Amino acid sequence: MVSSSPLLTLPATIAWKEDALYLLDQTRLPHESVVERVRTVEEVWRGIHELRVRGAPAIGVAGAYGLCVAMQPARDGSREAFYAALEQHAAYLDTARPTAVNLSWALRRMTQAAQRSDAVDAEALYQVMVAEASKIHQEDQAICKGIGVHGLPLITPGSGVLTHCNAGALATTGLGTATAPLYLAHQNGVAFRVFADETRPLLQGARLTAFELQQAGLDVTLITDGMAASMMAQGLVDVVIVGTDRVAANGDFANKIGTLGVAVAARYFNLPFYVACPSSTLDLQTARGADIVIEERSDGEVTHLGGRSIAPPDIKVRNPAFDVTPNELVTGFITERGIVRAPFGKNLAALFVSDGGAL
Amino acid sequence: MVSSSPLLTLPATIAWKEDALYLLDQTRLPHESVVERVRTVEEVWRGIHELRVRGAPAIGVAGAYGLCVAMQPARDGSREAFYAALEQHAAYLDTARPTAVNLSWALRRMTQAAQRSDAVDAEALYQVMVAEASKIHQEDQAICKGIGVHGLPLITPGSGVLTHCNAGALATTGLGTATAPLYLAHQNGVAFRVFADETRPLLQGARLTAFELQQAGLDVTLITDGMAASMMAQGLVDVVIVGTDRVAANGDFANKIGTLGVAVAARYFNLPFYVACPSSTLDLQTARGADIVIEERSDGEVTHLGGRSIAPPDIKVRNPAFDVTPNELVTGFITERGIVRAPFGKNLAALFVSDGGAL
Repeated sequence: MVSSSPLLTLPATIAWKEDALYLLDQTRLPHESVVERVRTVEEVWRGIHELRVRGAPAIGVAGAYGLCVAMQPARDGSREAFYAALEQHAAYLDTARPTAVNLSWALRRMTQAAQRSDAVDAEALYQVMVAEASKIHQEDQAICKGIGVHGLPLITPGSGVLTHCNAGALATTGLGTATAPLYLAHQNGVAFRVFADETRPLLQGARLTAFELQQAGLDVTLITDGMAASMMAQGLVDVVIVGTDRVAANGDFANKIGTLGVAVAARYFNLPFYVACPSSTLDLQTARGADIVIEERSDGEVTHLGGRSIAPPDIKVRNPAFDVTPNELVTGFITERGIVRAPFGKNLAALFVSDGGAL
Repeated sequence: MVSSSPLLTLPATIAWKEDALYLLDQTRLPHESVVERVRTVEEVWRGIHELRVRGAPAIGVAGAYGLCVAMQPARDGSREAFYAALEQHAAYLDTARPTAVNLSWALRRMTQAAQRSDAVDAEALYQVMVAEASKIHQEDQAICKGIGVHGLPLITPGSGVLTHCNAGALATTGLGTATAPLYLAHQNGVAFRVFADETRPLLQGARLTAFELQQAGLDVTLITDGMAASMMAQGLVDVVIVGTDRVAANGDFANKIGTLGVAVAARYFNLPFYVACPSSTLDLQTARGADIVIEERSDGEVTHLGGRSIAPPDIKVRNPAFDVTPNELVTGFITERGIVRAPFGKNLAALFVSDGGAL
């Protein structure tokens, strides 16, 4: 079993205990903290598909353990039957969130671990897979911790930090990405305040970020997205830290809709703007932000809330899930290997150089 | 009876017909368009207090006609009894929205009209008041029209206009302030698109602006507040027009929370940013934006929607109703007397010079 951090009082987003997978049902937060055991491959698929577990890093870990759950009925069969079932279940789970890069990546890594193994029987192959899932889980926690350590100096006593959406513990199996420096600073006794944008339309900031920071005892204030600039104008914000879904080779990055406006406001008020970014989120195949395809989601997310209409019937709506912030607005990327500063094209590429000397 | 514009298909926010006052209940928009007759001074008070009529200009007109309703029982009494009741009812109605400058202003103007009159009896005094209320009503419509005429050249064929909150017909008895140029351009056959920020927390953009423009047949798209910068980045916005609650002598201005972020984004993307502003909204007694006191409203507006909790219990919240945008971000103020451009200190003051030559 991989332990969650003692800094976090919430149930772990994902837990693996005595061959059983448990997921915290995030769709019921913040009003209920319900942990449910996931017993079949279909239940794993639904848990990911229905966003009970969400956040790219957490989805990867859930997919890895989920594939172990899927393979349990094959433990006492033949090696051949095991491999056949493995291929089938991995392909099935991969359809739960087709656009989640981390899910495909984790499932591929799990399958390869089994394929490369010289385990003598199905049970041994299963144990190889559990060990690999545990490794993916531990790596996720280490990456969060690394981002926290490198971002920690940005959180100074008495300062104000603003964040958008949830790049928090709930999006990972560790301290989160944008939140990791906050949790470590709090653990170190640094007194500071956090402003969490509610992040319409899906309110991840209100439901998740405000909730997890509140639960951990941090001084967090919830604001609507339109209040961020006003908090900056009042001198209440000293640094902005957000997460990211994809960073292009030139340092342009995609993140939850609303991030661009926050970045523009930070620039206007001369505030540093950092992006917490596991190095796996770098996509060197994408040259610049304009090349990132932005998912447009359903109108109902804007026009309804909890099934209740909050807008005129048949109103035309835009609902891009993400926006792209140009690299010129970024002060630095906080990665698990260090903070990457401009020129981003050169310095982000250097992350992939094995000696990491440029960082 | 003062007619509402044929451009608008909605019921008038306020109507006066055969000595009866009718209010469109805006708390039930956009799902129900209900016009209710207001029969007593207490019903007038509740209509204003409970936001069934809202928007500074509309509140002034409602207060003026409301005072007529209040005085109806005094029509066949003595002049002395009429004046005594007038003073009492005006003071009472003024408490319905203590911070609404237009309400006090309209009630004072109505009282003075009666006091200055040489009408021979109570009935004649009542008729003087009805005439004065009708004059206030017509002036409001003329001001909206004036803003529309002066703002019209800003709405060019194929362009995109972004607005925030509701400075629309529903906030006035005419074409609105920020919306007046839009209605006139639409009437002139100009094809253009409008983006309406939903305007959290109270969603006036979704409930009112998107609704009234949709009803009038304009091409309006509803977006969340965090999407405004993204629409600008995509080249979909050519001009921003917002309303204002108060303009300081130097051109700093207060408007609904979220306006500052929109102004900052407009600057970043090199877009013109205009403020629709009846000259009565200029407050030359307030030197600069920092002197404007910002109302902080209840936490529940942020944490709940339609009685439903959307945030963690006991979360700390900020809820300033307005923000202040510095004059340097303003391209111009669209007033009923013309567009005022920088230097604002000099040119706003010139609005009050009778010959208006500076404009």
